[in-house]
Amino acid sequence: MSKKRIIYEGKAKILYEGPEPGTLIQYFKDDATAFNAQKRAVLDGKGVLNNRISEFMMTRLSAVGIPTHFIRRLNMREQLVKKVDIIPLEVVVRNVAAGTLSKRLGIEEGQVLPRPMVEFYLKDDALGDPLVTEEHIAAFGWATAQEYEDLISLSLRVNDFMSGLFAAVGIRLVDFKLEFGRYYEGDNEIPRILLADEISPDSCRLWDFETGDKLDKDRFRRDLGGVTEAYAEVARRLGILKESGETDNVVSFNGGK
Amino acid sequence: MSKKRIIYEGKAKILYEGPEPGTLIQYFKDDATAFNAQKRAVLDGKGVLNNRISEFMMTRLSAVGIPTHFIRRLNMREQLVKKVDIIPLEVVVRNVAAGTLSKRLGIEEGQVLPRPMVEFYLKDDALGDPLVTEEHIAAFGWATAQEYEDLISLSLRVNDFMSGLFAAVGIRLVDFKLEFGRYYEGDNEIPRILLADEISPDSCRLWDFETGDKLDKDRFRRDLGGVTEAYAEVARRLGILKESGETDNVVSFNGGK
Repeated sequence: MSKKRIIYEGKAKILYEGPEPGTLIQYFKDDATAFNAQKRAVLDGKGVLNNRISEFMMTRLSAVGIPTHFIRRLNMREQLVKKVDIIPLEVVVRNVAAGTLSKRLGIEEGQVLPRPMVEFYLKDDALGDPLVTEEHIAAFGWATAQEYEDLISLSLRVNDFMSGLFAAVGIRLVDFKLEFGRYYEGDNEIPRILLADEISPDSCRLWDFETGDKLDKDRFRRDLGGVTEAYAEVARRLGILKESGETDNVVSFNGGK
Repeated sequence: MSKKRIIYEGKAKILYEGPEPGTLIQYFKDDATAFNAQKRAVLDGKGVLNNRISEFMMTRLSAVGIPTHFIRRLNMREQLVKKVDIIPLEVVVRNVAAGTLSKRLGIEEGQVLPRPMVEFYLKDDALGDPLVTEEHIAAFGWATAQEYEDLISLSLRVNDFMSGLFAAVGIRLVDFKLEFGRYYEGDNEIPRILLADEISPDSCRLWDFETGDKLDKDRFRRDLGGVTEAYAEVARRLGILKESGETDNVVSFNGGK
């Protein structure tokens, strides 16, 4: 593993050069960060769970026609993906007010939004990933007008699909963050837009429909405990982990109480 | 003056009940605040100057078909305006990067933007007037879709007109903030949108084309000195004040040096 060339190391993942041109290996670390990396921890087994959950999401989304970078899972912590140029925007879809939306705009956390809402944040750690508007995106060329429209429609499709998928296992999809990339195929000058990065409890807010328990990274942000256990609970409900527990780190989730 | 009923007191202005239904008296104070009222001062004569400059702008804009709340100036510090329901959005038009745009998005101050840019901020002091997107405005009903479009097109017209007007007197219009209100006329259920509030060096960034000197509230924000003098210089260049000086507070502007 150490022989592979590192292309990029992020807060929770490492991207290595892939085995053939146009591919990368995406490695899931156990590192957790929050509040623009001001808060840090290592959560044993998180990377293993996110690798599995993200594989599950990407393959299900691909099956309904959402183009993704995912090729196949290689092992417990790695997956093979297509090499894309990441669009420098985080696309956030919200169904229920929480997090920065509540804080910035004074909308009570837990309030169901009048409609799903798509927001764009500039991917820039030094600036704290600021909210940006369509005007900013167009004027500074972070995405073309067509890409902007595509990002919104793809994200809303992902939202509908994932809302249904989670609803089936008693989980409310509150909000989530997506990243997309440009994939240049053959001699085509206009790239295809692929869903990239990961979809996991690191990038979603997931609330148990019955109890309201948080099954996502907010357990880490808010020191609620039982972070990895909550991620494992999500994996178990989705049928990714067997009831008996498939990894060393899986213990049963009791809402962090 | 003290007998009039106060309808609303803001940081730089007071609105009194007007002499007839559907009117208000807008009184210009000398108070200056910045950074969400963390910084405060009284600048002798600022209110007199802003009353005159805003009268000048509103009447010129009205003459080219921009509907405004302005009826007439009453005296040195007061003007009669139509009573509107203020739309809870500050509309900012930018031609050159400065202020929060530079800070939030890392765009170098002074960089000419690829095109004029319209931003919306929620009018909410407690929240620090946060940037909002079209999605937020639509979902939370702060303006209708039609109003949103009208606010953009009116603001861009104001920008073109004012850019020309200031260019004629050697001033670059860097950016400015507008507020709009809903005006209910007769039995009409759909209100007209009127330009409201004020247009003055409190709400604009104005740079001397030759020297780059700031002729606006940034002199106060950044402790550059000569604030009222700079406002008077704007008024003088626009032909509002005679060269000899029309108010007690007018002294000549020397760039704050």
